[in-house]
Amino acid sequence: MHRQIEKILVIGAGTMGQQITAQILKHHFEVVLHDISPKSLEEAERNIQSFLSGDKPYDEFILTTELKEAVKGIDLVIESIPEKLNLKRKLFKTFNELCAEKVIFTTNTSDLLPSKLARSTGRKELFCAYHFHAPLYGANIVDIMPHAQTSSETILKLEDFTKKINLIPIILKKEHPAYIYNAILNSIMDTSIKLVIKGIADYKEIDKAWIGNTGMKIGPFGMLDFIGLDTARQISKNRAKKNPLMLFGVAYFNKYIKQGKVGIKTGEGFYKYPNPEYLNENFLK
Amino acid sequence: MHRQIEKILVIGAGTMGQQITAQILKHHFEVVLHDISPKSLEEAERNIQSFLSGDKPYDEFILTTELKEAVKGIDLVIESIPEKLNLKRKLFKTFNELCAEKVIFTTNTSDLLPSKLARSTGRKELFCAYHFHAPLYGANIVDIMPHAQTSSETILKLEDFTKKINLIPIILKKEHPAYIYNAILNSIMDTSIKLVIKGIADYKEIDKAWIGNTGMKIGPFGMLDFIGLDTARQISKNRAKKNPLMLFGVAYFNKYIKQGKVGIKTGEGFYKYPNPEYLNENFLK
Repeated sequence: MHRQIEKILVIGAGTMGQQITAQILKHHFEVVLHDISPKSLEEAERNIQSFLSGDKPYDEFILTTELKEAVKGIDLVIESIPEKLNLKRKLFKTFNELCAEKVIFTTNTSDLLPSKLARSTGRKELFCAYHFHAPLYGANIVDIMPHAQTSSETILKLEDFTKKINLIPIILKKEHPAYIYNAILNSIMDTSIKLVIKGIADYKEIDKAWIGNTGMKIGPFGMLDFIGLDTARQISKNRAKKNPLMLFGVAYFNKYIKQGKVGIKTGEGFYKYPNPEYLNENFLK
Repeated sequence: MHRQIEKILVIGAGTMGQQITAQILKHHFEVVLHDISPKSLEEAERNIQSFLSGDKPYDEFILTTELKEAVKGIDLVIESIPEKLNLKRKLFKTFNELCAEKVIFTTNTSDLLPSKLARSTGRKELFCAYHFHAPLYGANIVDIMPHAQTSSETILKLEDFTKKINLIPIILKKEHPAYIYNAILNSIMDTSIKLVIKGIADYKEIDKAWIGNTGMKIGPFGMLDFIGLDTARQISKNRAKKNPLMLFGVAYFNKYIKQGKVGIKTGEGFYKYPNPEYLNENFLK
């Protein structure tokens, strides 16, 4: 194996880009965070500093809008920009021209398959999906998902790096929409929503059944509030392209979204926040 | 509301019948456990005593093969015999003739819908499904599932009684195969098994993804070991009658069962017992 991953470029200073950057900085790797918007970078710096408070100060942390500064000496690119195929392709083409041949490229996409992006990276064997999870309920796994041409050495390097930043690598053998955990989560949500729509049970009874039996602190409808009903609706819309049955989810979420109940971010979804009923110790009583 | 539930008849001294009886005895209700086999009753008595060790001794606990003794003064019947429609129908017809009109009848069925049994009870409005969960991972919920004619008073009485024996009542509004939790669990298993069969990931990676993100101690394939691959295969066979896609599960389980890997009860399923890898603290490392 050649040089390990030592310096990382995170592209995109949104919520996930910030969290990925903070996680890497905590484990004392050099990080560059690049975004085209100086304002986004400023906000990201503030948030990252608050994520890191209490941890040792970092010394090699660069925030930049400049492409040439961004790519200097890097071993790994983690792309975390909006879920638009053409935008991502264009970005990888640009960075392919700027980066040394040996640099590993990854995408943090939730929705797209790496095979759709591989050609644009100009380094198919050094490219795969590298998917971080939002810290919803103690999430600490990272999916490493190859497309057909990804080399095994690329997977091994990412597996090693993931452990070094104290996250749990989950290795997929080939690509699959929604990875593993999200694929299972989708099926939980589908079944739960169908049970409500068919009039079998109220959403609270479903959350009670789930929390009672699994010991988790949150049930399917509480999770939907975390994810945001707008995001859940978008996922249902995307899945409906292949499976029109998914439209039942779109209609269901619309009913809530129209009333401004989008989840935690609007203060109310299925439950009211900041003190949702499911966190009350009497919820199961 | 008339008389509350004070004396309970559990019919069937198998694993679930024993656990239900013990749970009720712990909370100081009068219980009769009936089975046609004296040997089963003897074994049940030993097991129930060991479940209860440390708890206060019970005084009103009768084990009997005699029908007339079984029904004396009871308010509630919990049927927990094998999952055979005609056997259950015959049993309810027999007990309908023996029991007072006001006695509530319930079935602990996992597989059958209460509407298929209601007529045989001779008391449709006083009958519903009352479904206990095996204590796999701290399970403490009980599904209360009506058929179309079940009265709301019957549901309320069972809800009240469930709380008194320190379990969590989950109220369904109408009947549905596999209730709530089991319906969700089925979809988790379906997706997980499909991911393995499609060659997307090994079962251990799926369990890691699940355990890492949910914080539970066990993943889908560990749960299958608990349930038993023979039982999981039977569930898949039953579901395949309506959805032939479920046959993929049957074929998958057969592969393991042929090697004697049926789960915890044979010492090996997906994992080896008594110390399965997923309980090792390094499983996620």
